[in-house]
Amino acid sequence: MAGKVVVVVGVPGVGKTTVLNEAVRQAKEAGIQLAVLNFGDVMFELATSQGLVEDRDQIRKLRVDTQIALQAEAAREIAKKATSGSIILDTHAIIKTNEGYWPGLPEPVIRALHPNHIVVVEADPEAIVARRAKDQGIRNRSDDQTVEELRFTMDVNRQAAISSAVLCGASVLFVKNEEGKAGEAASRIVSLLK
Amino acid sequence: MAGKVVVVVGVPGVGKTTVLNEAVRQAKEAGIQLAVLNFGDVMFELATSQGLVEDRDQIRKLRVDTQIALQAEAAREIAKKATSGSIILDTHAIIKTNEGYWPGLPEPVIRALHPNHIVVVEADPEAIVARRAKDQGIRNRSDDQTVEELRFTMDVNRQAAISSAVLCGASVLFVKNEEGKAGEAASRIVSLLK
Amino acid sequence: MAGKVVVVVGVPGVGKTTVLNEAVRQAKEAGIQLAVLNFGDVMFELATSQGLVEDRDQIRKLRVDTQIALQAEAAREIAKKATSGSIILDTHAIIKTNEGYWPGLPEPVIRALHPNHIVVVEADPEAIVARRAKDQGIRNRSDDQTVEELRFTMDVNRQAAISSAVLCGASVLFVKNEEGKAGEAASRIVSLLK
Repeated sequence: MAGKVVVVVGVPGVGKTTVLNEAVRQAKEAGIQLAVLNFGDVMFELATSQGLVEDRDQIRKLRVDTQIALQAEAAREIAKKATSGSIILDTHAIIKTNEGYWPGLPEPVIRALHPNHIVVVEADPEAIVARRAKDQGIRNRSDDQTVEELRFTMDVNRQAAISSAVLCGASVLFVKNEEGKAGEAASRIVSLLK
Repeated sequence: MAGKVVVVVGVPGVGKTTVLNEAVRQAKEAGIQLAVLNFGDVMFELATSQGLVEDRDQIRKLRVDTQIALQAEAAREIAKKATSGSIILDTHAIIKTNEGYWPGLPEPVIRALHPNHIVVVEADPEAIVARRAKDQGIRNRSDDQTVEELRFTMDVNRQAAISSAVLCGASVLFVKNEEGKAGEAASRIVSLLK
Repeated sequence: MAGKVVVVVGVPGVGKTTVLNEAVRQAKEAGIQLAVLNFGDVMFELATSQGLVEDRDQIRKLRVDTQIALQAEAAREIAKKATSGSIILDTHAIIKTNEGYWPGLPEPVIRALHPNHIVVVEADPEAIVARRAKDQGIRNRSDDQTVEELRFTMDVNRQAAISSAVLCGASVLFVKNEEGKAGEAASRIVSLLK
């Protein structure tokens, strides 16, 4: 029997990595076969093996066509892996850049992944801004400067996740990652795998 | 000449049934040929005739693939009926469950229905919460406990309706069902059929 | 090398025309080959050449099927023109009518255009309402009577733009057109063409 594919998204600084590490621990404890994959990692591996890039930053500089083809190929590989157990895919519903918000789960990608669920990890905007200020090293850190800007980004993130879900028929689960309660957030994700 | 297909959605407790009964009455008075179908009923009939389920609750327990195939088949049947008059389809843009918000009009369904219009019946969140508290028996009653939670659900509902409309090119009409004015809400829906 | 296709949308009264005129001026100064096309104009030309309409208002009265076919044909023509330089397409993410909000970038249109970017020009709702009151002649002027209604329309506009972007993989850039600063708004759009 095939496992489930759960896509987990969240704006940078929301604490997604902590929640996913906790989800892996809980799944193991419950005897659930689970692999957590990072979409960027899978794409980077593919791009390297095809001789397209040497470092990660070069992916964003490929032609948009090439990037989309890579994304769709990565999505198909990931979907295939779900035949031997459940998969959590760590990725983004949107990526904020100077060119605006890029959809992280555009039509060809979401169609290839056909996830069962899309989980949007959220947190208080104030807490996220504080966390970002402490950890200047967060990768893909968006340039939201104020809580108001971050609220706007979080709205776009929700709307993009819902659009992607309508395309593939997945449910969208909003999970609040409250300060010091990553375990609770993780258990809501793990319950989707049961 | 083919009739129109109007999809009507709204969160539980918004008073959709009252509005649709009123719409049927008004359409009859105006000599408009109109059938109101409930998407869940059509799916249940199909599922029973195929020996897949014996009661309605079993539908949600079918494999997701089977559910989506059923939905698309129901959508095609409904679209066919619009050749002999207009159809209002009573359904949901989202269904709130423990697994999150399921899209009620995902891509294959909305593509098969290709409605002319999607009507989102709305009401004051305070009034909906009060109505839900009075009528514990509302079917599919979502678990929103507070007005704030309901506002969030209503936002997701709007966004899902808009996503579905972008897929099929339908217009999205937001109709406010004010306390004691179901007739006015109904007349806005009936005017789409003229 | 092919140019870029940038779709620019905004609610009536947001000052889009001023911003686009300024963008043309800036692009010329920077030696960027740019054509600004109006989607309605292209559709009207097509419809006239096919003998379907004699004036612009008749387009909205064509059968919805015919309108969608026209839209998709216009989109394909526009996408072709981008082979000889960049194109800005002046259009709408939504069109507000008595029948609700029609999507301006529904699936077949956005798929044929496959833009690189969708720019949503925004402004303070208060400023837009004031501008609309002064200029009664704004074409396609929506019937939002209050700032609250306009805010709602602007939300629908954003959500429709995001849905369209998820379908085609374009980025969505929100550009604020502040009073007297159309040049700044324009420069953000022109920077997408570099």
